[in-house]
Amino acid sequence: MTVPETTAPFRFPVAGRYAGMASSPLKSIFDLAAAAGVVSFAGGIPDPELFDLGTVTAAYDWVLSHQGSRALQYGVSEGEPELRVQAARRVSRTLPTDASQIRVTSGSQEGLFVVAEALLEPGDVVLVESPTYLAAVQAFAVHGARMVGVATDDDGVDPAALEEAIRTHHPRMVYLIPSFQNPTGRTMPLERRRAVAEVLLRHEVPLIEDDPYGELSFTGVVMPPIASLPGMAERTLLLNSMSKLMSPGVRIGWIRGEGPVLETLAVAKAAISMQSSVVDQLMVARYLETAELDAHVRTVSAVYRERRDALAEALAPVLPAGAHVTRPEGGMFLWAALGEGYDAQEMLADAVAAGVAYLPGWSFFAEDPDRSTMRLSFVTHSPAVIAEAIGRLGEVIARHGGR
Amino acid sequence: MTVPETTAPFRFPVAGRYAGMASSPLKSIFDLAAAAGVVSFAGGIPDPELFDLGTVTAAYDWVLSHQGSRALQYGVSEGEPELRVQAARRVSRTLPTDASQIRVTSGSQEGLFVVAEALLEPGDVVLVESPTYLAAVQAFAVHGARMVGVATDDDGVDPAALEEAIRTHHPRMVYLIPSFQNPTGRTMPLERRRAVAEVLLRHEVPLIEDDPYGELSFTGVVMPPIASLPGMAERTLLLNSMSKLMSPGVRIGWIRGEGPVLETLAVAKAAISMQSSVVDQLMVARYLETAELDAHVRTVSAVYRERRDALAEALAPVLPAGAHVTRPEGGMFLWAALGEGYDAQEMLADAVAAGVAYLPGWSFFAEDPDRSTMRLSFVTHSPAVIAEAIGRLGEVIARHGGR
Repeated sequence: MTVPETTAPFRFPVAGRYAGMASSPLKSIFDLAAAAGVVSFAGGIPDPELFDLGTVTAAYDWVLSHQGSRALQYGVSEGEPELRVQAARRVSRTLPTDASQIRVTSGSQEGLFVVAEALLEPGDVVLVESPTYLAAVQAFAVHGARMVGVATDDDGVDPAALEEAIRTHHPRMVYLIPSFQNPTGRTMPLERRRAVAEVLLRHEVPLIEDDPYGELSFTGVVMPPIASLPGMAERTLLLNSMSKLMSPGVRIGWIRGEGPVLETLAVAKAAISMQSSVVDQLMVARYLETAELDAHVRTVSAVYRERRDALAEALAPVLPAGAHVTRPEGGMFLWAALGEGYDAQEMLADAVAAGVAYLPGWSFFAEDPDRSTMRLSFVTHSPAVIAEAIGRLGEVIARHGGR
Repeated sequence: MTVPETTAPFRFPVAGRYAGMASSPLKSIFDLAAAAGVVSFAGGIPDPELFDLGTVTAAYDWVLSHQGSRALQYGVSEGEPELRVQAARRVSRTLPTDASQIRVTSGSQEGLFVVAEALLEPGDVVLVESPTYLAAVQAFAVHGARMVGVATDDDGVDPAALEEAIRTHHPRMVYLIPSFQNPTGRTMPLERRRAVAEVLLRHEVPLIEDDPYGELSFTGVVMPPIASLPGMAERTLLLNSMSKLMSPGVRIGWIRGEGPVLETLAVAKAAISMQSSVVDQLMVARYLETAELDAHVRTVSAVYRERRDALAEALAPVLPAGAHVTRPEGGMFLWAALGEGYDAQEMLADAVAAGVAYLPGWSFFAEDPDRSTMRLSFVTHSPAVIAEAIGRLGEVIARHGGR
């Protein structure tokens, strides 16, 4: 056999939609943030001390000793029946749901990808909050969709702006994170949810409602999903995840929907990954059946609330006049806009040099980024570590103020 | 809030590429095959009696008690380091591989989808064996690729036909399953692998080499992948899976590649599912480190060989003159072409009525299906069950012979 003499090494052809994504700017930020001695607020990384490891381990043990052969065998694309029953039971607290209306996914990210795969055509417009969760945007973008950002205020997406954008862009779907939003931490009050639902109903636009954080409430109030409002259940795909409530490493979430689209979701899921880990699915079903999940979520939320307080208190004195900062009543993230003259991306190198990292906010905007913004997760560190690190960030902000 | 009065229920818009796939013909076949009292040869379902459940359970136990917090935490899109080291060690038996060249996927299906996502543009041609594995075809088809089948003989794909197809169709890539192919069970001898590599090298066409069955050898001979031939490593993405060697329920596989495409594969994987289950990845790493996997695979292969023998012996007297049947030297599947006048799809209802099911072969052809073909998996049932069921299938074949 003769190998052709070529000087250039062989290069795999890469699809155009990924050609520009080869080196993500976020990857380099996370690499920076992971440097030794840096206190990072960049990722939404749960404190491992808060994992309910004993109960999870017991659930794995039980599955392997009682359902071992089945756990190691092929399952079905829709998801294992026990898990769908447990998921439906949990969703039914706010939205009556049958197990047949649940499709299991390998975490919310796969859920968003399955939805995009099943619904989106190249050139479709997806309306998103401005700012919004960037990994969702990526799942939509690689399907050739164009994201259009809709203006938000402290109560979430603005209904008038949403209606205007629907009229202008004829979107395939609207993507919202109504509770403890990523990146802002904001929650839509019930009145706003109703107004948004009315707009969506009037224009017959489907809703993709992403709700991974809703139960992590600091006030005890868990808002009903928009999907539960009159007329909305059949035109909403509601995504939940166990990542924030139990474990992100296990990668189990689900989509709740109605009607023929459920079949398409299962076909898309089969094309993407056949089925989710049967062991993990059965473990989560067992966990949901046996764990005191509500009590666990209350414990975690109480800790997160203390840390939210610590972050908010530490930030208040170091933010410049004119800065705007959210005060999330749950979830994992806080959002600060430093205002005119600040560039959070540009400031990051100095912050890292001072031993503190955050996520610059520009990447969360589909268009017209506010470059003075930053996302800070309050879930990873203790109040003392937060206070100390934000003090150092304050010095960096002060140095950048005069620029 | 007013709900618009519409008589028709809301229907989610579905992407065109899935519109025709809403009710898969195979799903109804598998539903038929799963009926009570039917001995099914349709799926490639391992006998659960052969699972190495004790070792798998011990590996989960070890991970949860030694790496519990990490196992429940976020991981990385490339895959957990320990698993990549173990995968590289295993691949290196035939192809020197560093852990950095491994990308972990949630089973081979996600591996194929990640590859399609990273490489394929709508309208691209993918050359495939005729017949080939239909779930791979689906992963490529939903990316808008057009599959072109290349003629095969008992030694696999025909190099002259491959070269002709490359000249005619300018494919983006070639997809092959060289060892114990699905659906035929055929294996390409080394000479044929060399000839195929030469064609691919001459035309600079990348190879997607799918090798989930190669170690399930009945002769002790495990063929080196085409990727290991001179010049081929850098232009091949080699896919392996633990599904056939350890457990399909755990959904762990990997892609072995070289160069910049590795980065694109990681970005695509992140968009699709962020990362595979960290618990499952660490468990497989521990399993590969501690289990006597080669001995386990020998045990499983010995049982499969007996069953292959039972199936081949039972089939020989009941096949019509002029039928062609493969005699696989490993893997899970045997392929029979009944020949002129037979339609395996049409015959299936009678077969199921007689209590036996198989997979009609037409669906494995990208074009010009031979409708007289059927795929039979020999891994699920004992020799006695196989003999009895194939006897009944023989009566059905005989009844269809005169049509």
